[in-house]
Amino acid sequence: MAEEVQNGGAENGTAKAVTVTFTAMKPQLIVEAPKAGDAVQFYKAAFGAEEVNRVNHPKRKAEQELPLILSAELKLGSTTFLISDSDLTDDSSAPVKTASGCIFCLETEDVEGAVAKAVTAGAVSEGEIAEGDGACCGGRVGKLKDPYGNVWLICSPSKKCE
Amino acid sequence: MAEEVQNGGAENGTAKAVTVTFTAMKPQLIVEAPKAGDAVQFYKAAFGAEEVNRVNHPKRKAEQELPLILSAELKLGSTTFLISDSDLTDDSSAPVKTASGCIFCLETEDVEGAVAKAVTAGAVSEGEIAEGDGACCGGRVGKLKDPYGNVWLICSPSKKCE
Repeated sequence: MAEEVQNGGAENGTAKAVTVTFTAMKPQLIVEAPKAGDAVQFYKAAFGAEEVNRVNHPKRKAEQELPLILSAELKLGSTTFLISDSDLTDDSSAPVKTASGCIFCLETEDVEGAVAKAVTAGAVSEGEIAEGDGACCGGRVGKLKDPYGNVWLICSPSKKCE
Repeated sequence: MAEEVQNGGAENGTAKAVTVTFTAMKPQLIVEAPKAGDAVQFYKAAFGAEEVNRVNHPKRKAEQELPLILSAELKLGSTTFLISDSDLTDDSSAPVKTASGCIFCLETEDVEGAVAKAVTAGAVSEGEIAEGDGACCGGRVGKLKDPYGNVWLICSPSKKCE
């Protein structure tokens, strides 16, 4: 099979070899809000997961007893996964309006290139590449749906977490 | 935390400190059969994933053009994930009767202990611990549903893959 990868970006239809490097792939479990905190405790107790970072939602509503969790980062063995409260509100920049389920965060320095390459391969890009606090600890984020129904977020590396 | 490992199985309800070590956590994407092979190609093309192992379903039906994929193992950066054809047939020992979606495989030498610990924390065990070719490259496998709707397979390490 050819190793050549073509860039499917709109402005560069003739590029012949685009190498996109992902620094991390993190499953992100979306939990019905506001149960993400409970879920973190459960994964600690059930599987011995270790919480290595937590970012709360910046728009904490006064009436909420607990801030919603934008992204809690857990380690289980050598794998990192994320737990997030679902965010179905209209006033949020969160790219994921999912009630619950599992999506995947792919971290890369080249968000545009990664989105373009995936679209060339058959993924569907949903919305614009967003800047901000949407997911995966901030940064730039693009959203893709693959032909098999899975949602992928292409994110800049989660530097704000470290 | 105590390093002592106690069996939390049905015969030992008084276990106080169970340490279970997981050697891997692998997201497993269940794809509507027989599209798993296409999905593997897609993840290679879209994200540059590398296929490191493939186990076909042992019960290949004569009328099938292609064998169903029990588990194809892909690497993306340092993360391993699995792609499997859905298996909704009654004559299979596969523990996952899911049309599509994402579940999680946790590998450990102590399947019984891991299942017992998770159940103590609030997970629901589904079915008996099975032996065989059900998932994750064979071996022993227990199935759990967590309180947030996610399915976890607790598997013995995938030695048959290596």
